[in-house]
Amino acid sequence: MKIALIGSGNVATHLAQALKTAGLDLTQIWSRRLENAEQLAKKTGARWISSLEELDNDIELVIVAVKDDAVASIVDQLAAFNGTVVHTSGAVSMEVFQSKVAHYGVLYPLQTFSLKKEVDFSTIPICIEASDAKTLLSIRQLAEQLSKNVTEVDSARRSILHLAAVFACNFPNHLYALAADLLRQYELDFDLIRPLILETAVKVQQALPAEVQTGPAVRNDELTLQRHEALLANDPHLVDIYKLLSDSIKKSSK
Amino acid sequence: MKIALIGSGNVATHLAQALKTAGLDLTQIWSRRLENAEQLAKKTGARWISSLEELDNDIELVIVAVKDDAVASIVDQLAAFNGTVVHTSGAVSMEVFQSKVAHYGVLYPLQTFSLKKEVDFSTIPICIEASDAKTLLSIRQLAEQLSKNVTEVDSARRSILHLAAVFACNFPNHLYALAADLLRQYELDFDLIRPLILETAVKVQQALPAEVQTGPAVRNDELTLQRHEALLANDPHLVDIYKLLSDSIKKSSK
Repeated sequence: MKIALIGSGNVATHLAQALKTAGLDLTQIWSRRLENAEQLAKKTGARWISSLEELDNDIELVIVAVKDDAVASIVDQLAAFNGTVVHTSGAVSMEVFQSKVAHYGVLYPLQTFSLKKEVDFSTIPICIEASDAKTLLSIRQLAEQLSKNVTEVDSARRSILHLAAVFACNFPNHLYALAADLLRQYELDFDLIRPLILETAVKVQQALPAEVQTGPAVRNDELTLQRHEALLANDPHLVDIYKLLSDSIKKSSK
Repeated sequence: MKIALIGSGNVATHLAQALKTAGLDLTQIWSRRLENAEQLAKKTGARWISSLEELDNDIELVIVAVKDDAVASIVDQLAAFNGTVVHTSGAVSMEVFQSKVAHYGVLYPLQTFSLKKEVDFSTIPICIEASDAKTLLSIRQLAEQLSKNVTEVDSARRSILHLAAVFACNFPNHLYALAADLLRQYELDFDLIRPLILETAVKVQQALPAEVQTGPAVRNDELTLQRHEALLANDPHLVDIYKLLSDSIKKSSK
């Protein structure tokens, strides 16, 4: 199956490399940022194209790995394409393809990607969805060559997953950043809490997070909660976050 | 140096095992929960004692690894002891020992401990502090046999570290729990986001968290932010958390 990839950002880059690693036939790459497409094509042995009109006739699958709000306009440009089109977004409904493309679906790799950081794609959960049974089968076969962890998830539940990912990834990362700011203010090294951050995430790989909650809020240690709020008194914004999350922990542990 | 340990909870248990692994002379263990002390003593080749009056005369160091609010009352019971006393708490000031014990200090291992989960103590940052230079040296020598990562931190900055640990560990774990609740409501498996949680923590082992922030808030994706809030509409408590943390991410990335 000849594949074309649209996009050159974090997801597109990691996906292109995973396709190559799996020995799949990534033939063409297009990106709004032509230079990036060229670079990515060179890295993965594909050809870069300067316009979507240059898509080969024998391309069977187009993977649209662009920003959420750019998916729809890309789909509009694929009206002449007869094969299958998938996007890789957690937040964009599959309906974006409806009455525009004959066969379509979603291939959503649930991971946080950074250009500089390699990931083992084979362990990344891939959520798939398709317009029809035959398309679903072909998307599943592709996905299973990329990862051991493939699950069918419809658009409504995929949007919940995407939301849960904000709670489980984007928000924790921001809390790490707030902790780093706090340490910097007092000339303490962020290295001091890196092992703690890692262990907190490692713990829930087996356990459920509610079972391993620690800290002053879960043990109703009012004295420590008050002391912490006092330490944050110069920064009302941090006090708000501290209170809201501590109250939420108390509420959950009731 | 003969050591006695007071406590039998998460910290005491992991510390006892680390002392044993390092070949140090853990001689006696006492805990308010006598059975736990007995169990821990058996595991580590120490003797358990049923009262602090049974402390051997040749004990040189007593490590108090009990709940924060129990440290002071333990210290009161050690008035007759002539050696060095340290506690292991992030939140309790070293002043708790003042005018009660001659030589004292703190040995704070900055990690989240669970009874069931083994940890590699040698990578855990240990923050130390002492009443005098000689005591500091002996605490440092002990700590360096337990971990490669020993730092001197005074009580004021230790309380900041402890607060930062709440932001970097307790709060992220609670956000994992909220994500798990959300997934459960929609019959989605928590396994789907476990790799994401791990990768988020792995990323900041090298990078600074502010540099690797992802998600709708940091890219000012108002449409996704609104959609997410709409998905949470049944649970105003989650909307509050979503808004406060998203606003905080926006503020930080300005």
